[in-house]
Amino acid sequence: MSLLVVGTVAFDTIETPFGKADMTIGGSGTYISLSASYFTNNINLVSIIGNDFPEKELKFLQSKGINTSGIVQRNDMKSFYWHGKYHYDMNTRDSLATELNVLSVFNPVIPENLKKADYLCLGNIDPEIQMSIINQVEKPNLIMCDTMNFWIETKHKELIETLKKVDILLLNDSEARELTNEYNLVTAARKIFTMGPKIVVIKKGENGALLFHGESIFFAPAYPLEKVFDPTGAGDTFAGGFMGWIAKTNDFSTENIKLAIIYGSVMASICVEDFSIEKLRNLNTDQINKRFDDFKNLITY
Amino acid sequence: MSLLVVGTVAFDTIETPFGKADMTIGGSGTYISLSASYFTNNINLVSIIGNDFPEKELKFLQSKGINTSGIVQRNDMKSFYWHGKYHYDMNTRDSLATELNVLSVFNPVIPENLKKADYLCLGNIDPEIQMSIINQVEKPNLIMCDTMNFWIETKHKELIETLKKVDILLLNDSEARELTNEYNLVTAARKIFTMGPKIVVIKKGENGALLFHGESIFFAPAYPLEKVFDPTGAGDTFAGGFMGWIAKTNDFSTENIKLAIIYGSVMASICVEDFSIEKLRNLNTDQINKRFDDFKNLITY
Repeated sequence: MSLLVVGTVAFDTIETPFGKADMTIGGSGTYISLSASYFTNNINLVSIIGNDFPEKELKFLQSKGINTSGIVQRNDMKSFYWHGKYHYDMNTRDSLATELNVLSVFNPVIPENLKKADYLCLGNIDPEIQMSIINQVEKPNLIMCDTMNFWIETKHKELIETLKKVDILLLNDSEARELTNEYNLVTAARKIFTMGPKIVVIKKGENGALLFHGESIFFAPAYPLEKVFDPTGAGDTFAGGFMGWIAKTNDFSTENIKLAIIYGSVMASICVEDFSIEKLRNLNTDQINKRFDDFKNLITY
Repeated sequence: MSLLVVGTVAFDTIETPFGKADMTIGGSGTYISLSASYFTNNINLVSIIGNDFPEKELKFLQSKGINTSGIVQRNDMKSFYWHGKYHYDMNTRDSLATELNVLSVFNPVIPENLKKADYLCLGNIDPEIQMSIINQVEKPNLIMCDTMNFWIETKHKELIETLKKVDILLLNDSEARELTNEYNLVTAARKIFTMGPKIVVIKKGENGALLFHGESIFFAPAYPLEKVFDPTGAGDTFAGGFMGWIAKTNDFSTENIKLAIIYGSVMASICVEDFSIEKLRNLNTDQINKRFDDFKNLITY
């Protein structure tokens, strides 16, 4: 099944207690589509880049079966850039620089041949843009959307409108609390159901992810790793594995969505083992299956 | 199999965003033995109380099959008392008062008939007292010990000596980090192995618990509840369910210890649904089995 991904393709400079990586490849669209590419083939990425984005990295995405024809390149502007520094706990971070650049003029027009997407995955971008994309595509089987505190605070009304059209909302615990004014995550998820989404996935970083689907609650831990190098992109990699698995299987029963959560967690746990997208460049099926089995052992009794 | 529990039997005043409970029954020994009593019969509680402790509460513990003959009553002193106030998140709390009272003279002498305990569960008390108890009992099958930041900071050397004799160390994530000077919990657990314990259980509150046993890692989530009334005693209730299950089955294989972790989590998730020990007073097997099944559904895919 075809998967349409809309998100950023960008540069990140990342500092952790273990080192620094300058101007590495980042962006929600990059992580989502790269992670999904290990599950399904028909992936179309819609994004915007500047004149500084390396041709060879676009070619790399294409080599993974990702159609990049929906990425607009602006020759008069630079790519979106983020510089972050992680604290010792690797869970909290400071943004040292955020340069919107091309993102300030991002107003995606979905190419005609991509409007019939089976699955739509909206990375964490302005909810008005998310809505504009939803209005352009023709009845996908499922629409998944990510968001963040910034949009909850600055575009609350627009986000609420967008959520009415969304099937799966993916967000982290502090975002779920802020969106609903509820501290308890079970109560928060139930409140989100009344806003539109039928499925809510609450990410808790190193503490795993909770899936709410009707009356069902499912929990997947984050894999306990001895070395976490760089948490950047873990949430988007989770989303990519999640939607990649659903697009591959074309099955959104509760049971299959649980598997999607596990595959999302598997991919995220691999992603954080190196800087940027490095670990996602050359994975093979054996490595993914091995981590999938490790997950099974972690929670089987 | 017989289980010897050493811990406090005390009063708590508890404030949460949902209400206040004055002078309720608390203490690590109370929660541990009460929780364990739903799994095994031969439970012996060693503790100290003052002249203010209600006779009817001792009778209640006895009605649960707990032998309270090892509880010393001081007629010239008051019971240990703690007053805590939980923040809105129900995970952090302030201690508003801690009155040691009888605890300041606690120097337990294990009665002759209790020295042949099959299993020993040392609640969170002074590591010197824990060591003195270990020296009094005759080769139990397994010694479990809990501790806290206060002892890590103020009795570090004594704690390290005690740990050499301990089979299972139960502690929370911040304590594991402080004890080992390692942020990563996998690394921290490996370091604790070199201090003596063969099994390490790291509790993460609402984020579940990790079991480390040799090369095995197992994770049990905390059950996601819509209403958490009072987290007081959750960790001790976990320990009681854990040790109760091991004493009942007399089996400390990795597979059975995983089950013990689940039963510990089941009991803790029930405990927090009401103030103090209220929820643990009159449980039946059906309620415990129901929550056990809920746990299974929560993580089965």
